[in-house]
Amino acid sequence: PPRVVLRRAVMERTSLDPETYISTPPATLCRPDIDKPDSMRARFEKVIREAQDSIVKAIEEVDGKKFIQDAWTRPGGGGGISRVLADGNVWEKAGVNVSVVYGSMPPEAYRAASGNQDKFKGKGDVGRVPFFAAGISSVMHPRNPHAPTMHFNYRYFETDEWNGIPGQWWFGGGTDITPCYVVPEDMAHFHGTYKKVCDRHDPSYYPKFKKWCDEYFLIKHRGETRGLGGIFFDDLNDREANEIIKFSTDAVNSVVDAYVPIVKKHMNDPYTPEEKEWQQVRRGRYVEFNLVYDRGTTFGLKTGGRIESILMSMPRTASWLYNHEPAKGTREADFMDAARNPREWL
Amino acid sequence: PPRVVLRRAVMERTSLDPETYISTPPATLCRPDIDKPDSMRARFEKVIREAQDSIVKAIEEVDGKKFIQDAWTRPGGGGGISRVLADGNVWEKAGVNVSVVYGSMPPEAYRAASGNQDKFKGKGDVGRVPFFAAGISSVMHPRNPHAPTMHFNYRYFETDEWNGIPGQWWFGGGTDITPCYVVPEDMAHFHGTYKKVCDRHDPSYYPKFKKWCDEYFLIKHRGETRGLGGIFFDDLNDREANEIIKFSTDAVNSVVDAYVPIVKKHMNDPYTPEEKEWQQVRRGRYVEFNLVYDRGTTFGLKTGGRIESILMSMPRTASWLYNHEPAKGTREADFMDAARNPREWL
Repeated sequence: PPRVVLRRAVMERTSLDPETYISTPPATLCRPDIDKPDSMRARFEKVIREAQDSIVKAIEEVDGKKFIQDAWTRPGGGGGISRVLADGNVWEKAGVNVSVVYGSMPPEAYRAASGNQDKFKGKGDVGRVPFFAAGISSVMHPRNPHAPTMHFNYRYFETDEWNGIPGQWWFGGGTDITPCYVVPEDMAHFHGTYKKVCDRHDPSYYPKFKKWCDEYFLIKHRGETRGLGGIFFDDLNDREANEIIKFSTDAVNSVVDAYVPIVKKHMNDPYTPEEKEWQQVRRGRYVEFNLVYDRGTTFGLKTGGRIESILMSMPRTASWLYNHEPAKGTREADFMDAARNPREWL
Repeated sequence: PPRVVLRRAVMERTSLDPETYISTPPATLCRPDIDKPDSMRARFEKVIREAQDSIVKAIEEVDGKKFIQDAWTRPGGGGGISRVLADGNVWEKAGVNVSVVYGSMPPEAYRAASGNQDKFKGKGDVGRVPFFAAGISSVMHPRNPHAPTMHFNYRYFETDEWNGIPGQWWFGGGTDITPCYVVPEDMAHFHGTYKKVCDRHDPSYYPKFKKWCDEYFLIKHRGETRGLGGIFFDDLNDREANEIIKFSTDAVNSVVDAYVPIVKKHMNDPYTPEEKEWQQVRRGRYVEFNLVYDRGTTFGLKTGGRIESILMSMPRTASWLYNHEPAKGTREADFMDAARNPREWL
């Protein structure tokens, strides 16, 4: 009976059918008879599912513990695969999710999803917008306060014609890093890896997407960024979808190269209880950003996605101290300076 | 220089002057030459400042540790007094804030504050709404997982004439309790205390405000309430302000009677590490509600209130476990049932 109430609350905010849990995910989460293998929908799903496999494998090799998997499908099409590493040796919580969603959403969720609020202004708030969304998203929180948290998300959206607005498509995504301490050479490695990825596709991408990342991951009420950046883009449809999927593929397949060497370098660093506490405070800020501002989280909560997958991004533990400000000249104060005044790392 | 960035980010979302910290709060935070002692503004400030004093005193007596105080004023009028008990003996984090704000806010903050979205529909999104707000708010998180968290908030709002809408006033508030385990006799005491308070003013209040509380403190994306309720009301202006301030005064002055006996009963209960972990998971849900749905928090973050006071409601620590569901027949499962199917306690 409790589940009935839960389900009712969820169904009120979504058009999604309830999920059916399955032990083995099917070859495709798309609708096999409609979404042909050469459609952008099916091609993007292939990219993110292969990326999920290869990233999970690379993380398991470092951690020594295996991810567990939850998979589900929905009667009308779509589904998801969540892979979670809980209480690992190196990561205390890491998750890599893939989801494919066919549904319709309230206009405010549409606007939240697209990021471009102006595009739909004055189009009324009636009816629901039919959409397709496929994405991979991941957050990894290590135990060691000297090993950074990392997040990435790559997604592809399509909407059908709605209220006289023609169908739209766009790509979004990015990879960003959230250490608790500034180590310039680590940041040069992370940002440098993504600059190379960007430059292979368009030399204007890195500076633009680096700046966008700093602006997007701003905890507005605190005037500080969540972490030390990376790349972020949204509403990307300024060239052939064929070109953008190549860039997205290259970016998602560079996550391991950009991130794992930094974790390997720091996963056995000694640390003090004070450094662990500082990590917990930064994790509290991570929670603040994700629940108050993050577009993916907002979108997921409003469209009735699977809560445990959406909130997998939450850290294992977090702290809030009243009026905490690191003492001048400390490494914690240096981090705060970098969070308040985003730096160039290259 | 970091503070400059912080301040800029804050000033973009508010009309509030920067705060000046002071060691001793003035007799009134209202504008002494404009807000006469018999105005509702000045009278309500008096009520909440006296309540702050008496509640803090009662909590200090139980805890044995003192609250620290931060107070500030703003050049254009208004200010605040935050009192915080950090790492106490009984409470790991408790705060009681009073604030008086003169400002102007963007219309979406106005709507968030009033709760009544329809009242302002079609009035356009231009300009800023001048307002006065005075309120007391408090959250207390004990260490012991058998001692409940408690929250209360009582507030009075006025807006000036705006876009052809005449000036408005209303009261809002409530007291609610968030245990980790269901103890029916404790809930009967807490709810019973507030039923008596309500009945002294209007017998229709308790059933209405109890239901409103269950509905308001719903974590929509999970289909569960934050805690086990209490009373909640908003937009209250259905009778003379003089009557409503009496009810608000009675309600805020009943916090200690309703809550403290329950904490005294449980503050030394033995508990297991598993019970402590369950408390941490429930605190994670507390964070989810406050950052995603709470009107006071949303209003504060949007209008540029003092962040440390607004987010004082955050627990000292919180946890997120993946896909955690208590085993059937446990006390944790009983709590989840009560959170999914709100009960009558009287």
